[in-house]
Amino acid sequence: MSSVPESFESVAVSTRMRLARNFADYPFPWRLLKDTHAEEQAQEIVRLITATLSKVDQFTLYEMKHVSDERTALLLERNLISRDLVRNRRISAALISSDEIISVMLNEEDHVREQYFMRGFDLPRAWERITGLDDAISDSVPFAFDEQFGYLTACPTNLGTGLRASVMLFLPALSRQGTMAREIVPELLRLGLTARGAYGEGSGAEGDLFQVSNEVTLGVSEEKILTIVGQAVGLIVEEELLGRARMKAEGGLQLRDKVSRAYGILTNCRVLEEHEFLRYLADVKLGLALGYYSDGSEDDAWMAQLDELAATLRPANINRLNGAPLDKQGQDAYRADYARTAIRAMQLQTD
Amino acid sequence: MSSVPESFESVAVSTRMRLARNFADYPFPWRLLKDTHAEEQAQEIVRLITATLSKVDQFTLYEMKHVSDERTALLLERNLISRDLVRNRRISAALISSDEIISVMLNEEDHVREQYFMRGFDLPRAWERITGLDDAISDSVPFAFDEQFGYLTACPTNLGTGLRASVMLFLPALSRQGTMAREIVPELLRLGLTARGAYGEGSGAEGDLFQVSNEVTLGVSEEKILTIVGQAVGLIVEEELLGRARMKAEGGLQLRDKVSRAYGILTNCRVLEEHEFLRYLADVKLGLALGYYSDGSEDDAWMAQLDELAATLRPANINRLNGAPLDKQGQDAYRADYARTAIRAMQLQTD
Repeated sequence: MSSVPESFESVAVSTRMRLARNFADYPFPWRLLKDTHAEEQAQEIVRLITATLSKVDQFTLYEMKHVSDERTALLLERNLISRDLVRNRRISAALISSDEIISVMLNEEDHVREQYFMRGFDLPRAWERITGLDDAISDSVPFAFDEQFGYLTACPTNLGTGLRASVMLFLPALSRQGTMAREIVPELLRLGLTARGAYGEGSGAEGDLFQVSNEVTLGVSEEKILTIVGQAVGLIVEEELLGRARMKAEGGLQLRDKVSRAYGILTNCRVLEEHEFLRYLADVKLGLALGYYSDGSEDDAWMAQLDELAATLRPANINRLNGAPLDKQGQDAYRADYARTAIRAMQLQTD
Repeated sequence: MSSVPESFESVAVSTRMRLARNFADYPFPWRLLKDTHAEEQAQEIVRLITATLSKVDQFTLYEMKHVSDERTALLLERNLISRDLVRNRRISAALISSDEIISVMLNEEDHVREQYFMRGFDLPRAWERITGLDDAISDSVPFAFDEQFGYLTACPTNLGTGLRASVMLFLPALSRQGTMAREIVPELLRLGLTARGAYGEGSGAEGDLFQVSNEVTLGVSEEKILTIVGQAVGLIVEEELLGRARMKAEGGLQLRDKVSRAYGILTNCRVLEEHEFLRYLADVKLGLALGYYSDGSEDDAWMAQLDELAATLRPANINRLNGAPLDKQGQDAYRADYARTAIRAMQLQTD
């Protein structure tokens, strides 16, 4: 069997941690929305948490009713806010750290949704960061907590810990060999975990990216959740690396050809739709993962650059970079020019 | 309408002239083949013409019965010999000049088939060269000539002048816009001309290459044939250049994208079938023809290099270059490696 770079980072791409919280002394957001007299209470939550977080870090406050459509699209695209937050825009807000690794949504489905993102796989670190944030908030305003049920939430699926620990996995081998759908996803379900496509619900697994996270929040401790997610990720990474070695051995020159053509198209095209872009990008990343380029020393940095490129060339961000909204044709041309220049500059190929 | 390089050479790629002749004092080849006692006569023809041509230029004699299958495939592939010559291998031979621009086939359908090839479009020059050769042969052995019918040939379709004047045309615009099939081919037929795909009969117009030649040889003078072919080529070139300008204007970024992707695939692939190669090569040549690359000063040289590459990467020649026969998979890999390296080295792209 062919050898492939045994890089954990080339599989487990990023970590995300989310806590859902509500305040004991305020009605749930859906109540605040219904009752126009309650708007003052919603604003009070925003004021209080903004003041609290300003002591922790540098945050920008987005009061959703004042945020432009373009900015809203951009924040959605970067997963810094949710569609529910936009729906509640009359009373909702987001506090986003200047480095965009922390986002606290206010008056979404719950009073507070704390989110922390990081490149790479590090559940303990993510947990430490999110609890630091959580402690700061609960010190200033008491959370709704029940001895039996734990943290109370608007939707019972988040009851208990309110914790969702997610890891983004790049799984070209398991996905293309069908192992993901056939074996891994059912096994994850059995463990109370799920695997979603990276680009939102119903997007399938575009770019061979899957987000694995816990589905169950009630009746298990935070530690247990982190342990289960961590162990599952470890096993999937192992499976994926084995799958890549098998893929490389069996794929031979045809696979190398597929990867090389994807690189050739990305570094030469003049029009590039997003779906096509993500498909070819996944092929090039697969090439990196199979050790086709160089000695592997720069692989992780290149992988990160390519993922960054995918985020950069999403529609709303293209409009931002362009300084004015573009139609679909204009976006496809912009994406082609940008990707062509950026990937050429990486000088990935060694032969 | 967009401007495109007005290069005649980018349309009229090469010129080929052929004369069919028979000797008055020998039976036609089909008679020589039937009668085993006549083999001596066939050999006499080969001896006589070999001696005659040795005074004119440097020729290599291929007595077909002694030529290996590999070499035969190579000569066929380069259009230096015909399938009929191979069929008559018991008595047939070819005399090929060291620069491969002259090929004289002996005991094919006729005693002598004289052929001259040249890059570019120059019927007068090709005519001058072929008649020089023809005079040398007829000075040593008298041709079968009839006052009423002209030169006598085994097949009546070659009777008269025995002349076929052909010009190879690269017609991406007329071919892809459908003008070739709809308007040009019927018009050529009306003039007693034909247009064939470049890669032999039944190959369609692979690589957007068409060979235009006279169909009628009897009842018209050589001068008339050359005039008609020359005029037809002139008109087609004009139409093609107009078609290219229209194509460029209407095709916009999508067309540029198609051409650029073809370049990207050719300079990166690891496996490349011949049909696919010719298709992408035609796209890149179209890019040259539309003025996408550089200032156009090197376009004709590049076009010639790309056509040369197509000839280099035909199956029998790949086997020759490789030094040993390859199976289809091996050939496709060899073609990819060779094309990738060669086209990269041309440094076609300026952005």
